[in-house]
This record gives sequence, structure tokens and C-alpha cells, in this order.
Amino acid sequence: MSVLALDIGGTKVKLGIVSRSGRILESTQFEIGHKAKAENIISRSKQVLKNSKVKNISGIGIACAGFIDASSKKILFSPNLNWKNVPLASIAEKAFKKPARVENDVNAVALGEYRFGAGIGVRNLVAVFVGTGIGGGIVTDGHLVRGANGRSAEIGHMIFKAKGNLCGCGRRGCFEAYAGGRFIMRNYRRLGGDKLLKTPSEIFYAAKRGNHAAARVRQEAVEALTLLCVNLATSLDTEVIVLGGGVIEHSPGIEKEIAARVERYYSGNWKACPKVVLSELGSDAALLGAAFSIISYPKKCGQA
Amino acid sequence: MSVLALDIGGTKVKLGIVSRSGRILESTQFEIGHKAKAENIISRSKQVLKNSKVKNISGIGIACAGFIDASSKKILFSPNLNWKNVPLASIAEKAFKKPARVENDVNAVALGEYRFGAGIGVRNLVAVFVGTGIGGGIVTDGHLVRGANGRSAEIGHMIFKAKGNLCGCGRRGCFEAYAGGRFIMRNYRRLGGDKLLKTPSEIFYAAKRGNHAAARVRQEAVEALTLLCVNLATSLDTEVIVLGGGVIEHSPGIEKEIAARVERYYSGNWKACPKVVLSELGSDAALLGAAFSIISYPKKCGQA
Repeated sequence: MSVLALDIGGTKVKLGIVSRSGRILESTQFEIGHKAKAENIISRSKQVLKNSKVKNISGIGIACAGFIDASSKKILFSPNLNWKNVPLASIAEKAFKKPARVENDVNAVALGEYRFGAGIGVRNLVAVFVGTGIGGGIVTDGHLVRGANGRSAEIGHMIFKAKGNLCGCGRRGCFEAYAGGRFIMRNYRRLGGDKLLKTPSEIFYAAKRGNHAAARVRQEAVEALTLLCVNLATSLDTEVIVLGGGVIEHSPGIEKEIAARVERYYSGNWKACPKVVLSELGSDAALLGAAFSIISYPKKCGQA
Repeated sequence: MSVLALDIGGTKVKLGIVSRSGRILESTQFEIGHKAKAENIISRSKQVLKNSKVKNISGIGIACAGFIDASSKKILFSPNLNWKNVPLASIAEKAFKKPARVENDVNAVALGEYRFGAGIGVRNLVAVFVGTGIGGGIVTDGHLVRGANGRSAEIGHMIFKAKGNLCGCGRRGCFEAYAGGRFIMRNYRRLGGDKLLKTPSEIFYAAKRGNHAAARVRQEAVEALTLLCVNLATSLDTEVIVLGGGVIEHSPGIEKEIAARVERYYSGNWKACPKVVLSELGSDAALLGAAFSIISYPKKCGQA
């Protein structure tokens, strides 16, 4: 039987009916306002299901930015939606009379790529998503790492340079403060870069055309992403690192450059260099991961 | 029923009969030569069991330095013993006619502390062991992270400083190259430190008595260990970080200093600071982790 998957973003909800093998049978999306309520999102989703050809689902999987409790039932905090302690899975379970689970959005991306995308055939995968900031999702030995407080894989805030650039999180020298989209912009301006360049990908493009400030900012970002990959793979013995998010998607070839640099850290005695690849599922990754989260529930040993 | 646990070191084997609740009922140890063979170690262990009061065991758990395959059966490579592809668990299973499992030694330490030591009551723990080098063991959501190639938790070789000190592994700037015992000594000598100080703990002691070179080396080591803890906890949402190993054990109070520094990275918006504590099981940690590895086998969901 198929499942219903929701990917709740800051301004819209993507909705899909997904088969157990990861095929999106139907999909749609609807806009939500800044003060969207969980109950409204669920009731609109119910309406969508009513109008679809598939009448019967076995459960609901939901991806949403924020911290999720260890049982994958409650959103502890979601900054985009300004939700605190919202029992989203219970609300969905009541409405649909089916089991439901919630995952952090980048964790869902990791799950999706692990089961249906770049990670097919491996059991150790990390997703590194570079947008405004840097988010992550970690699968080890076939298990999604959820962590003690629903805050696993805050990989953008691992420290890249002690006493380095101030990050939005209050720490200094985070990877995000060098390679997150917002900080790529900020670092470029700080080096006296002009205001004509409006996006990280424009800066990266200018870097290749002789703009010195842009070249320096790009180099730091690539170095930060390289070391982030190396550090994650070294601590977790990862097979596949999936790169995605706006900054990556709009910088053609950057994943190959990072992969080549990572490889240099795996020379000599170092074996088992992780593969660094682009996201295969692209903008469907979180939706498919949300689907897998409920498809694989109740979990058996060895499943993410 | 009890289990037989072995902790195979470079020069000796520790052997214990351990109850399911982690009590060491009997223990002993025997020396091994540099070219020790797995078969000899197992047959000597069998002899020990024969002479013990406990006649019946339910399985054998073994801790050993090196890379272990994902099924916890075979030692892929153990540098101390110069073993390659040794099917240690199968050898033990044949000899004892009971199930056996092998774990990397620091992974076993993490398992031991998780189940019987500093990690009782938590599900996310990292062991950071600082001796000549730095080894690690990671438990997330109650699962020991084994990784794709039996090389998980090579945390000493995560990068602390890009383009920093050359490490024994061939990389530059590894945490180990600043805080591993061998490198503490090397860095002290490089700064012109005298040859009277023979151990990291002597250097750390001199640091507190006004020796400038020693103070600088100590500060770098403490900073490296702090950022190592911060980076692990940030990526894994760890509750407890267990510090152990010779360098830590012989530097009284260093764990408190590191804990206080880690706490500074968890101020402001950062919640859920990990507890940084000393190993509770000390030199029995690997033995007890080896025991738990077989006690908990076959694994159920939610067990390490």
C-alpha cells in the first residue's frame, strides 16, 4: 500500500503519494502563510487525498525543518514556522486514522537518498545541504542518527577555524560561516566585493573570471566543504556523501572539485575514500525520505 | 549465563568472565609475544576457562585494536599484532562451540561505558581515548557506529587545523597531531623544550609551573580536545563524552577544564551541552564492552 508524504517548507507544502518502492504516484503542492497552523496543513492534505485516485494509504510521513523529538512524533521547535512543541504526528494520526512520523527535513533528505537515491546499496551515507546555511543528515550502518535532542547533524556548526568568522549561531569559525550561502555573500562584501553580484553562484562564477575577492571567498568555501566532508567521513567511515542545496545546485561542477580535494586526504595509508556525489533525488529527496520514514515503520533492525 | 570476554593488547591478553549485568566474576591475564597467533590466544583462553569455577558460558566477546569487518567476525588489520584478515570470531566459535564477536578496542570501550559505565541511562555517547594517539568509539541512538569498512571513529584524524602539523597518518593538522601523546612530546621538543620531561603528564605539570614551551603545547592540546568534543557532539547530538586513556588519566583535572571550555560553545542559542566526563570503567572498559557485544547478540532494535 502507498503512503502519504508531506514536505513542509517555510512558504509551501509539497505533498506526494508514494509507493513502497519510492515511486511518486501523484504529487501536488499548496502555499501556506507565515502563521500556518499544523491542523490546517493536515486538513488541507486530507482534502487533497480525498480528491486523488489513491484512496487508501498505510501511513503519513512528514519532513519539516526544525528539531524533532526522538520518537519522531513532535516538532520541538521549527524556526521557519515558529512552531514550538507541536505534536504534528499525533495531529496527522487523528485526522487520517493511520500511523504518522515526522523527520527533520535534511534528515529526511538523507533517508531519501539512502533508500531511493545516491545511497542505494550502501549503509553509510551523509547528506550535506548547502543553502543559506548548511544542514546535514547522517545514516550509519543503516540507521538514521537522530541524536539525544532531535539536534543531530548540525554539521554546519562544527568548527572549521578556531577563532574564525562569527557565525549566526554565536560560535566562531563554523563551516557555515565560510560556506553557507548567507556567509558567502557576507564574506564577499567584507573583502570589498561589489553589490552587483547577488547570489553565491554569481560570486562563484565571477571567481572563475578573475574577480579576486570572489576567488578568495570561493576558495575558502570549497576548502571548508572539503574539510567538512573529510571530517564527517573520518569520524563515521562514510561510503557516500551527497551534496545538495541551492549553493551546490547552482555551482556546476563544484561537487567534482570537492570530491577531488577529499580524495587527496585519502592518499597513502588512508583507504576507503568516500564518494562525494550530487543529490540524485534533487527537490524530491525530503518528500521521498519522509515517505520512507513511515514505510519502514515499525523499524526492523538494519533499517534506517 | 555469563560470557567470556577477551581484551587483546599488543603484549598481553586480559580475560574476564562477565555476568549479563556487567559484573566481572573472575579475571586474569597472560603475556603474548610480538608474533602471537590467534589460535594460540584462543587455546590459552580455553585453558583458563577450564581452570575457572564457571564452566558454562553463552558466548565470547573480544576487543582488539585494528579494523574489524562489519559483521564483527574478522580482524581486517591489526597493526600491533601484525594480523591481516584473521577470522578471530570463527576461530573462537570453533574452539568454544559458542557464538563469538570481535570489536575494535576503543569501540568496545564506548560500548562498555555506554552499557555499564558513564553512559548508563543515555543513548548517545562518544568515547575519546588519548594515549600515544587518539582513538574513538561512537554510540548513536543506542547503536555502535561500525562504519562501512570497520574504520569508524578515527576521530584523532579529523582535521583541527588546515595545513597544520604533519600527523603520522600522512594528513596535516589532525587533532592527534596536537593532542596525541606522541605529538605532545614532539611539539614540546620542537619548541625547544628540554629532554628531562619524558611524558605528556610531566609536560602538562611543567606547564602549570611556568614552563612556557610546555604551557603552549598544553594549551594547544586542550584546545584541540575541546574542539574535538564540540565537533563530535555538534554532528551527533551526543549526551555524554567519555574521556580516557593514559594522557587523560595522568593529567588530573584536565577533563574538568575541557568540560568548561566545551560549555562555552553551548551558550546563547545552543542548548543541550554534552557532559564531558572521565571514563568510569577505566582499564576494564574494553573488557566489559567486549562482554556486552556478545551479551547483546543477536541484537534487538535499540541495542548497541
